[in-house]
Amino acid sequence: MYDLNQNFSRFPGGYLFAAVRQKKEEFQRSHPDADVISLGIGDVTKPLCPVVMKALEDAAAEMGDAATFRGYGPYEGYAFLREAIARVDFQQYGVKILPDEIFVGDGAKSDLAGITDLFSDRNRIAICEPTYPAYADSNVVGGRCGYFDEHTGRWTSVMYLDCTEDNGFVPEVPGMGASSPDIIYLCFPNNPTGVMITRSALQRWVNYALEKGAVILYDAAYNAFIETPDAPHTIYECAGAEQCAIELRSFSKTAGFTGMRLSYMVIPEALRCGGASLRNMWKRRLGARYNGAPYIIQRAGAAVYTPEGQKQTAQQVAEYKQNTKRIRAELEAMGYTAYGGTDAPYVWMKLPAGMKSWDFFDLLLTKAGVVGTPGVGFGADGEGFFRFTGFGTPERTEEALARIAKL
Amino acid sequence: MYDLNQNFSRFPGGYLFAAVRQKKEEFQRSHPDADVISLGIGDVTKPLCPVVMKALEDAAAEMGDAATFRGYGPYEGYAFLREAIARVDFQQYGVKILPDEIFVGDGAKSDLAGITDLFSDRNRIAICEPTYPAYADSNVVGGRCGYFDEHTGRWTSVMYLDCTEDNGFVPEVPGMGASSPDIIYLCFPNNPTGVMITRSALQRWVNYALEKGAVILYDAAYNAFIETPDAPHTIYECAGAEQCAIELRSFSKTAGFTGMRLSYMVIPEALRCGGASLRNMWKRRLGARYNGAPYIIQRAGAAVYTPEGQKQTAQQVAEYKQNTKRIRAELEAMGYTAYGGTDAPYVWMKLPAGMKSWDFFDLLLTKAGVVGTPGVGFGADGEGFFRFTGFGTPERTEEALARIAKL
Repeated sequence: MYDLNQNFSRFPGGYLFAAVRQKKEEFQRSHPDADVISLGIGDVTKPLCPVVMKALEDAAAEMGDAATFRGYGPYEGYAFLREAIARVDFQQYGVKILPDEIFVGDGAKSDLAGITDLFSDRNRIAICEPTYPAYADSNVVGGRCGYFDEHTGRWTSVMYLDCTEDNGFVPEVPGMGASSPDIIYLCFPNNPTGVMITRSALQRWVNYALEKGAVILYDAAYNAFIETPDAPHTIYECAGAEQCAIELRSFSKTAGFTGMRLSYMVIPEALRCGGASLRNMWKRRLGARYNGAPYIIQRAGAAVYTPEGQKQTAQQVAEYKQNTKRIRAELEAMGYTAYGGTDAPYVWMKLPAGMKSWDFFDLLLTKAGVVGTPGVGFGADGEGFFRFTGFGTPERTEEALARIAKL
Repeated sequence: MYDLNQNFSRFPGGYLFAAVRQKKEEFQRSHPDADVISLGIGDVTKPLCPVVMKALEDAAAEMGDAATFRGYGPYEGYAFLREAIARVDFQQYGVKILPDEIFVGDGAKSDLAGITDLFSDRNRIAICEPTYPAYADSNVVGGRCGYFDEHTGRWTSVMYLDCTEDNGFVPEVPGMGASSPDIIYLCFPNNPTGVMITRSALQRWVNYALEKGAVILYDAAYNAFIETPDAPHTIYECAGAEQCAIELRSFSKTAGFTGMRLSYMVIPEALRCGGASLRNMWKRRLGARYNGAPYIIQRAGAAVYTPEGQKQTAQQVAEYKQNTKRIRAELEAMGYTAYGGTDAPYVWMKLPAGMKSWDFFDLLLTKAGVVGTPGVGFGADGEGFFRFTGFGTPERTEEALARIAKL
């Protein structure tokens, strides 16, 4: 008689963004004429830029001709893409990452889930709070989170790194005497708070990981939004990071690829645990569990790294950021406190004292027809906050802000 | 200090097809003028058919226009694709599978890996031997295989279902008194032997699973190649299968999608363990660990289910099967014994007595410049056999056969 992975029973309710979508759909069913504006899920709205479109069309055409047709590709991704990534995303920042240290995937969520395969179930994970839910969720299946305590809204076995107004939403390394985590999730520019980490603060985390024998999973999905001078564009700008960190990147927000599904991970050759190379383990895993991203999607991804592609995607990012800056400025003008929006597509709004974030979600949806994301969905520390994204059009963003002002 | 998943150290050497590719590449480097013909890895060579190309181009164009651009899609796949699958792949065989029981993925290898998440590590798996290596490999990471015994070429914790000439490469259910497995992998039409199972033999496996409380993972990736009358086109043609079986399908061989990455799984609503619905568990897993297949790839997949798509892909499959039939007929004319090739793109050749399959691989590569797949790569029972695929062009297949005849 077969039996099931009991860790599944530990999931508390549904996935945050599925819950948000469901509430929105229910409201639209009961109010078919309502004009709902979504500033909730972090999904892009701009079409693929011209140079990406051209690459996509050319690659599609190749698939229709026997002379240029492509079947199975390398599990780790095509060299043309990995070489472009190494050159543009790392060499220009003075960081040496080789194409053989880059692994193309079909999305950061898949990569985050897959990478947990490399680690034993005994490791203690540390996550920022508030945080993107997939870090903990991807570890629930492997049993690394313990139980979800409905009272605290936290997992019993997870170490939480509090991100609060007091520390500017950037956690410090645990002090002397504190127990140390084994796997540390960091995300900068941060989702959901929108803040960026400084080079020196990130170096302290790298030093801490090296000292404690921890590994950092560094989610840099919003990298393209960084504008603060001297902010680190990759964790490998920090000395020693190649010995303790895996960096995750996504094309979703950089190039509007949420519907295209493309990502990559950097697993440096120097990253070893005991004598074992994590890079080699990942290669073995790919052979057993993955067959690579679609060729045409990889070609579209490579176009992002051409000079034209860099210019066109940067223009899109700049336009989204105009929205986040407008959101933050308007919220502040209305008297709210708001964070982020400078180095990230997110604005983290502080709710009036005592207001619960799901209550504000309901209020905003039913009274203003605007969808955002309740802060508590990102963890207990997120209660009392609300996330807005800059991925709408300028017109719809202004309309949403006008409606919020009338609340 | 973090530690690693020690199960990785149990992998014996590299992945079979990676090893084959490497040997081929090494030979080509040292013999740059050699004209090597690959009948090894099961990769298609024909371009995408016209109706799929049209859908791909149209969907790509949608991504370049803000009015039709698609971002994140449903984790389980778009309804337009799941509805087409339910109608064409199941209803026409009198089987009722609902779109809500269909989950779109990016390849059978990914799906096979992902589905293991649902089961506890205590389950005993049963696999046919010889077999596609991914069934065992995807379970190694979770620790369900025990240790690889280099002497026997088998995993210590896996139950093997011998597929031999004596049973026509179709295993019978374990007899009374034999210990019973919890998770049973079956693949028909079979890779690597190319044989098909009868409806009554498959029903015996379904009855056995129901009686023992086992779950069957039924890999029907080569479904489109079935031509034997009255052979089951889906396991759900068997009474009770919806209570004990998950069926896996791939677009790779059906529609030449190896470079496109598209697949689906059927997890029936009636499939429950204790009170738990495996379908609901999978939905929860998708929320935590996957973001869906690319929109344009799903549109291309849906085109396969149009009347034109069915006709065009069937034509491609028929052309590949002409090759397998030629391979089998010619091998038999040369005096070899060969199996399969009727309901599958594979021919399973018996080697002369005492010949090892890697030795034949080397002989074939160096003397004839032809690449096949050594039988032992599919497990110990595969020793003494060799797999050829029908995915070459007719001209190259004939050329390879002429070279083999001269060996």
